[in-house]
Parts: sequence; structure tokens; C-alpha cells
Amino acid sequence: MTDVTDRPTALDLPMVDPLPADTQKYFDICQDRLGMVPNVLQAYAFDIDKLNAFTAMYNDIMLGPSGLSKLEREMIAVVVSSINKCFYCLTAHGAAVRALSGDPMLGEMLVMNWRVADLDTRQTAMLTFAENITIASAKTTEADRDALRQVGFSDRDIWDIASLVGFYNMTNRVASATDMRPNDGYHSQAR
Amino acid sequence: MTDVTDRPTALDLPMVDPLPADTQKYFDICQDRLGMVPNVLQAYAFDIDKLNAFTAMYNDIMLGPSGLSKLEREMIAVVVSSINKCFYCLTAHGAAVRALSGDPMLGEMLVMNWRVADLDTRQTAMLTFAENITIASAKTTEADRDALRQVGFSDRDIWDIASLVGFYNMTNRVASATDMRPNDGYHSQAR
Amino acid sequence: MTDVTDRPTALDLPMVDPLPADTQKYFDICQDRLGMVPNVLQAYAFDIDKLNAFTAMYNDIMLGPSGLSKLEREMIAVVVSSINKCFYCLTAHGAAVRALSGDPMLGEMLVMNWRVADLDTRQTAMLTFAENITIASAKTTEADRDALRQVGFSDRDIWDIASLVGFYNMTNRVASATDMRPNDGYHSQAR
Amino acid sequence: MTDVTDRPTALDLPMVDPLPADTQKYFDICQDRLGMVPNVLQAYAFDIDKLNAFTAMYNDIMLGPSGLSKLEREMIAVVVSSINKCFYCLTAHGAAVRALSGDPMLGEMLVMNWRVADLDTRQTAMLTFAENITIASAKTTEADRDALRQVGFSDRDIWDIASLVGFYNMTNRVASATDMRPNDGYHSQAR
Amino acid sequence: MTDVTDRPTALDLPMVDPLPADTQKYFDICQDRLGMVPNVLQAYAFDIDKLNAFTAMYNDIMLGPSGLSKLEREMIAVVVSSINKCFYCLTAHGAAVRALSGDPMLGEMLVMNWRVADLDTRQTAMLTFAENITIASAKTTEADRDALRQVGFSDRDIWDIASLVGFYNMTNRVASATDMRPNDGYHSQAR
Amino acid sequence: MTDVTDRPTALDLPMVDPLPADTQKYFDICQDRLGMVPNVLQAYAFDIDKLNAFTAMYNDIMLGPSGLSKLEREMIAVVVSSINKCFYCLTAHGAAVRALSGDPMLGEMLVMNWRVADLDTRQTAMLTFAENITIASAKTTEADRDALRQVGFSDRDIWDIASLVGFYNMTNRVASATDMRPNDGYHSQAR
Repeated sequence: MTDVTDRPTALDLPMVDPLPADTQKYFDICQDRLGMVPNVLQAYAFDIDKLNAFTAMYNDIMLGPSGLSKLEREMIAVVVSSINKCFYCLTAHGAAVRALSGDPMLGEMLVMNWRVADLDTRQTAMLTFAENITIASAKTTEADRDALRQVGFSDRDIWDIASLVGFYNMTNRVASATDMRPNDGYHSQAR
Repeated sequence: MTDVTDRPTALDLPMVDPLPADTQKYFDICQDRLGMVPNVLQAYAFDIDKLNAFTAMYNDIMLGPSGLSKLEREMIAVVVSSINKCFYCLTAHGAAVRALSGDPMLGEMLVMNWRVADLDTRQTAMLTFAENITIASAKTTEADRDALRQVGFSDRDIWDIASLVGFYNMTNRVASATDMRPNDGYHSQAR
Repeated sequence: MTDVTDRPTALDLPMVDPLPADTQKYFDICQDRLGMVPNVLQAYAFDIDKLNAFTAMYNDIMLGPSGLSKLEREMIAVVVSSINKCFYCLTAHGAAVRALSGDPMLGEMLVMNWRVADLDTRQTAMLTFAENITIASAKTTEADRDALRQVGFSDRDIWDIASLVGFYNMTNRVASATDMRPNDGYHSQAR
Repeated sequence: MTDVTDRPTALDLPMVDPLPADTQKYFDICQDRLGMVPNVLQAYAFDIDKLNAFTAMYNDIMLGPSGLSKLEREMIAVVVSSINKCFYCLTAHGAAVRALSGDPMLGEMLVMNWRVADLDTRQTAMLTFAENITIASAKTTEADRDALRQVGFSDRDIWDIASLVGFYNMTNRVASATDMRPNDGYHSQAR
Repeated sequence: MTDVTDRPTALDLPMVDPLPADTQKYFDICQDRLGMVPNVLQAYAFDIDKLNAFTAMYNDIMLGPSGLSKLEREMIAVVVSSINKCFYCLTAHGAAVRALSGDPMLGEMLVMNWRVADLDTRQTAMLTFAENITIASAKTTEADRDALRQVGFSDRDIWDIASLVGFYNMTNRVASATDMRPNDGYHSQAR
Repeated sequence: MTDVTDRPTALDLPMVDPLPADTQKYFDICQDRLGMVPNVLQAYAFDIDKLNAFTAMYNDIMLGPSGLSKLEREMIAVVVSSINKCFYCLTAHGAAVRALSGDPMLGEMLVMNWRVADLDTRQTAMLTFAENITIASAKTTEADRDALRQVGFSDRDIWDIASLVGFYNMTNRVASATDMRPNDGYHSQAR
């Protein structure tokens, strides 16, 4: 049975009840595999069109084919969220970095200050770009893209990095603007 | 016949060729109604899954049911893009504000400095929230949401405002990170 | 007959009435050549000494002999005003860039984000210096001046660039502090 | 005899030689009354038109009729220059505040951190406005002007404050961009 | 036996060897009670005078008599360190907040974004002051101190808050400047 | 006889009365040698343990053995305090730079904008590091430490620079948070 959070945000927007069969099935799979239905999904479930648009983009960006590993995508999520100080995203994606890397300290480092992590040239370039695009995207020039190409990223990879950075700059703002709360379960995961 | 931009971004990511029938039909409709296929769509068309995820979210946010008028949504798009100095989005959505409002100067004001526009209490609150969430989302508190409620926005409207602000903080970064260029046609629209 | 704006700023400072003959003649020439008396002149006309001091400096900086072309001076005006988000100056000098360059998109680019414009090395160096001096003048070192010399600017040109940047940092603040409004005519010029 | 500074800025722009009679007379008066020809005048004297435009504006703003006392104008000069960290202007106008107020510590406070000075409501409002216009002029609204009106400033005074803030935001940038150096004499004045 | 970290910072500054008897005894007590000798102590132990000065101030501020509870002092440590993004201090004092509060999520919230924590009026005022003093101490006015007095803090408490904020602004910079690394043990404490 | 300042801060925290013999003796020595008991000591003297902890650290950092000269330590004190705009520390340590260097203008330059001072490579690197650590310590990388090593600083010197920068970031905040006032005597020293 699905573990429903009473109110995943500060807004009074109850989930559609009952959920459409497809949505209920998706939530059941989440519950089964993750042990929870992530609150972001519960938050969007007041409007199934919005939920579907969000999950389609999330699944494409985080789970679709890419030259970036799943860990690298989660690393970008955490570094962007650290700059924006988004409690929801740091909690959920910090847990994912800990789990995917098998290195709990890496997760903590990316949450607190990514520059202390012992990263290779490729990941340093990737996170430097992510930081710059988050803070001052208008200052991007061809030199910034070339810095990524020089450590082996393809133009397709650059698109993916830009999309990830953009996506978490979106979710950080939606989560903080609505006071979205992460499921309690994340905190103790993969410590 | 579709007017194809040679390279809508600085990345070498050619469109799928030929486009799937559904996509071609969608582009033909754009060409027909707008006189152009917006370059953002051409940019995403190297990967149809990404294009579809983007257009689904865009259509929901900008065209779906909402307590915010279409003009108000475009106003948020421009104000967010002005803070982030996104050339693509300022050009495309600045044109939309000019067209929807029938007030070319309003479009210019929102591009240049929204505080000079003569807005009512509701729109001032909306754009103040949009500015705050763009610049420092982590500082949001219940008082910020209450400021919106006090001028008549519902919790559902607040979700929509947050989503719009988030969405353009995403697209601004994707556009600037890839040097996405707006179609020339926008510049002279609704002057 | 001169087209007098009712109140060019938010301050209640009516023009001297009647204007001295020299001032009236100057305004008539403006009306004749530009189709308007720029509101900044009307704003200063509550005190003829102030008006004369302003126009003397303006004319020297914008129209006097210099190694910088008139277009380049307007480009600096727009880039400085974009950083300071000055509605008056972006409107008036954005129109001037469009007119002098014959390239409406260049005007838009400089208003929105100068880094997207396709500039040569000289103009890139000039606008980089203008941006730096606007944002953090105290960090200027000899290396910054040498960067200008290396692309061909003389010491006299450097003075002129510094003066232009300084001048628009002044006018931006006077205009925004008083809510000065540009003449409507600028918006549609040279689109 | 005029005490000529070897090179008042980092730029190689020698004074017109000989100076026109009017300029020489003006410099002689400075030497006589101030014991120096301020380096800013020597710096501008490579071009007499520029010098005259600068001195006309300076004299109007600093010495012309105004609801602001000369000390208050110098206070604004120092506070603006402290934000911009302009060595020339802090030195010259810090000395002026010490001299005009007969309170050397007031000069130091305004150079270092104006909030520690024991100011009345009027001057606090004036310097708050000066700080805001210097840092973020585009955020000015009618409420900011009303805050000045409420402590007794007229609309004409508001213009003067805006002009002073603008003027020193100009000179700070010209001075720092050219590495202009203050005359040694200022340092020990009115301690 | 003491667990000695190979090199607690990026600097080549080995501990005095052998340690003076008093220092060795102090380290043994740490090992015994905490299960570790905090790396900050090992880092300072290249110079016993510096170590003693640091521990004397630390012990006074964190363990001495105060109107602030030990948890409140640790909360300030974490909030200051979050602003400065200090990996060492966030790790060590984040663990202390988790342990002292018995609320692991509170520790995470203060590390990530203190505004999401559910704090009472007193603690909100305390952390608001800590944030303001960390970011822009020169803007402090009597109103800021009064805001603390109004929620029940004495002048002595205000001194203590200021000292704590100051102290962690010191240690954050020493730790980040030298790449000081926290003992591994902190990460899993009190989860 | 000791010259006691009525209230060295805005807090009502009277000195222990009578002072312990050791403290009284220390204050007498200050009065004798400096002509004053620095207000910071009087401010801390409401609690002798805090006073002793502060003076122990101060004496170690400012007077203990180091590869940095006493002037260089004072230069760091002033540059850090200039960034933080701390009136107390700029006044006291600005006087120290003037006195130790025999160059009153150097003291003024460091208070106003250290980049205008004519410094050698070593001191420029030292103050650049001090500025960076003050503004954004979390961005420090090995390259920053290497820049110091390359101009001749040892790892021990780097520790000392970091400690000095940290210490004045502490005292600036304590002083500004409590409105600590410097003794009047500093202002006219070594002019």
C-alpha cells in the first residue's frame, strides 16, 4: 500500500483521488522499488497532466541514454542544489550520490562544497560548467563549451549537462517556493 | 514548407532526418500559425523523446488551464529571463508580451526593468515573487506565499507561478549554455 | 512647435517658463532633427545651468572628436545601461545603436546580453572593460588598460572609454532615481 | 607658481602646454586657495573642452545653490566613493568632510562605514538613498523618494541628491579606470 | 592509543613529536571520550602555543557558561559554516547538532538551508542575526541587537552570539584555506 | 591611571570591578606603552576568561614568531577589515600600518583600496589570498596555496596568513555586531 505523505508542500493541493490507474501503478512501483513514493511525485499529483509532464522529463534526463553516467547526473543535481540551497533536492539526490557511488563521503562533499571532493579532470570540468551555468549563465561563451570538449565530452554530452543544470535549477525553485519536503527515508539511506 | 534554421545552437546536433510524421506535422502547424518553427523546437529535434518531453511541459505550463492569464505567464517568462539575461527567451517572450498585451512598451519595460511598468497590485506581487524565487529561492518563507494569497492568488496559482519561474530558469540556462538563437522573425513582431 | 512631455520624471520640477532663447532654439533644433526633445533635456530644464552643464558634457563625450566611432560610444552606453537596468537609457541608446549600425538585432543583443553579439576583438575588449569598470572599478589594474592597448586603443581612447562608462553610470542613476521616462518615439525607431 | 603633478593618472596624456589663459588663471586660483591644483583638473587638462565640461558640472553640483549644505554634498561624495572603493575620491572628499565638519572622525567614519556615524534622521535617509542608488538604482520606487520627502527633502533636493550620487559614480569610475592619484596634500588635511 | 591522521591539512606541518605531556594527555582524553582526536587539534599541533590559544578560545565559547545552550551554539556553528560552505565545520558541527538534538534531520536542515527548520521565535532571531553578521556585518544597527533583546536575549547573550559567529567565520576560513579534513568518524555519527 | 572608556560597545557589559591584579597590570602596561587601553580589551573585560583567551590568540598571531613581518600582519588586518568595512579594526590597524611602515599613505591606501598600493610580488600575492579567503574561502584550491609558495611563502607562512585572515574576519564581526568603538587616539596617530 502506498505511503502517502500528508502534505508534501506548504500548498493545499490534495492529490487526485482516486488516482488514475496508470498513476496508481507507477506509484506502486515506486513504493515497491524505493520503499517510498517520492514526495515530489505526490506534490505534482494534484494534476495528472503536470505529473506526467514532469515524470517524462525527469525520466528522460535522469534515466535515458546519455554519455553521462547515472552517478554523474546525480552529481550535477547535488551541485546545482547546493548552490541554490534546496533542501528537498539535496536530501533526495545526496542520498542517490551516496548510493550510486558507494561513497557516503562523496555525497556529503557535494552537498557541502564540491571543490573538496577528489574528482578527475572530466568531472571537475563538468561541475565547473554546472556551477557557472547555475550562477551566471549569460556569461557562457564558446570557451566554456570547448573546456568540456577538451576533456572528452561530445556536443551531445554538453546538451545533456546543460539540460541537467537547467532541470535542477527548475526543481530547486519549485521545491523551495512551495516548501516541498523530502520523504524521511532519504536521510538515513546509504550512510 | 518548413523554414529550417541552419544551426539553432552552437552545438553540432542535427535534427533527426526525416522527422517522425507527428513531429513534422507539429512543425508544419507552427510554420503555418507562427510563420516559423521556433528554434528551441528545432534545437531539441536531434532527439524526439527530449523534444516531446519539452513540448509537453511547455504546453502544460503556457497553454494549460490556470488562474494566470496567458499574458501573465509571458510576463513571468520575460522577468525571469531579464534577470538571467537570456537572449533567446527575452526575444521570444518579449515579442509575446508585446503581442498579447497590445502594448509594445510593456514588453520593452519587462525586458529592461520590470519595476518601471505600471502594474496593479496583483501583478506586482506576482513579479516580486518571481524575482525573489529566481534570485534566492532558498530564502522563501510562508510570508512570501501569503503575500500572493493576500492579492487573490489561490494555492493552485502559487504552484503555477512557481512552475513558471522554475521553467524559465531552466530554459534560460539551456539556451545560454548552448548559445541558442531566436528566429529572426521575433524582433520585428508587434512593435 | 516643441512637443513637451507633461512630466518627464516622478519629480515635480517644471521647466523654466519661458525658456531662455538659446535653450528654446536648442530644443527647436532637437524637435526638428530628432522629431522630439529628448525627455532628459526637458527634465534638466527646470534649471538652465544644470541643463547646460549636462549638455556640454554629453556633447563632448558623444559628439566630440574621439578614436571611438559614434556607434561604439552608443554601444558602451547600452552595455553600461543593461548592467544597471536603466529603462530610459536602454530605450534611447538602444534606438541609437539600431539606427547607427543599421542592425536592429545588434541593438537588441546589447540591451539583453552583449556577449551574444558577434563582435570583433577590439569591441569585445572595449565592452569587457566597460563591464568591469561598471561592476567593480576598484579592481582595475594596469593589466586591464594593457588589454585595451593590445587591441589598438590609445591612451586617449582609454580615457574616452572610461569617461563614457562613467557618464552612463551617472545618467543611469539619475534616470532611475527620478523615474525618468523616455519619449515614446524611441521604441519604434529603426526596428 | 602652479605645482604640476608629473602624471596624475596611468595614462600618457600630457596637459596642453601652454594652458589657455583662462585655464591658467583657474589653476592659479586653485593653487592660491587650496595650496594645490587638484590632480583631477590636471588629468582633464589634456583637452580643454573636457576640462571645462567637467568643471562646469562639478561647480554646479558642489557649489551651486541647493537645499543640501556643502558638507552634505561632500558626505554623499564620500559614501558613494566608499562603496566603489575609489582611492582618489575618498582621499579628496574625505579631507573635505573633515574640514567642513570640523570633525575628523566623521570623515573617517564615512570613509570606513557610514553606518557607524551618529547622524540625524535627515542625513540617514539621504545616505541610505545614496547607497541604494549606487548599488541597485533600478530597484528605486516611489517609496524611496517618499522616504526622502518625509524627512523634509523637496523634489528639487531629491534631484540634487540623485545628481550627486550619479556624479560620484561617474568620477569614481573615471578615477579608478585611469589610476588617478590624489595630491599628497589631502592626506594630512584637517586631521 | 591516539589515532593520528596522516596529514590533516594540505600543508606540510607535522605535529610536534613527541607532544608535550599536557597535550598528549588532552589528546588521550579526546580519543577516549570522542573516539578520535579532532583533526583541527592535530592540525594546530605543529605549534603548541597556537594549539593552546585555539583550544582556550574554543572551550570558552563552546563549553563555558552562557545563556545559550550547547545545542544553540552548535546551531550557530552550522549555519555560519553553511553560508561559508566549510566542509570541515559542517561535518563536525553537523554531527554535533544531530547528537545534541537527537534529531538527525535538524542537523541536515541546518547544513542545507536553515530556513526550512521548524524553529521557535528565539532561535529564528538568533540564526537571522548569525546570518546577517556573517554576510554583511557592517550593516548591523541597534535595531538588529534590539531584535535579539525582544525575544529574550540579554546583552551578555548578544555578546556570545557575536563571538560564536565571529569564531566560526574564523575557523571556516582557516579550514578552507588549508584544506583541513574532518575525521571520517563524524559522517556516520547520530544518523 | 587607566583611561577607562565609558562604554566601549553598544552592549551593557561593565568591566569586572576591581580587575584581577594580572589584568590590571596588563592594562597599566598598555596605558604606559600605547597611551591607551585599547577598547577591545575593555570590551572583553566583563569576563576575564574571555579576555585572556582573546589576548592569548591575539598575541600569538600578531606578536609571535612568524615568517611574516609585523607590518605584513597589520596589512592583512587592514585589507580584511576593509572588505568587511569594520570601523574599529580599520581605525586601530590602519594606525598600526601607518606607524610601522612610516608611510601614512600606505595606511590610507589599504583602508580605501589595497590595489592602488605599490606592492611587491610577495605582498600582492599575500593580499590577493587574504581577499579571496575573506570573500569566498570555499573556492580555495591547491592552486591558491601554490601561488603563495611560488613567491617564497613556506607552508608555515601559509598557515599564518590563513590564521590572520581568519582572526580578523572574527574580530570584524564581533566589533561590528556590538558597535565597538576605537579609542579616539588612533585617528591622529602617525599621520
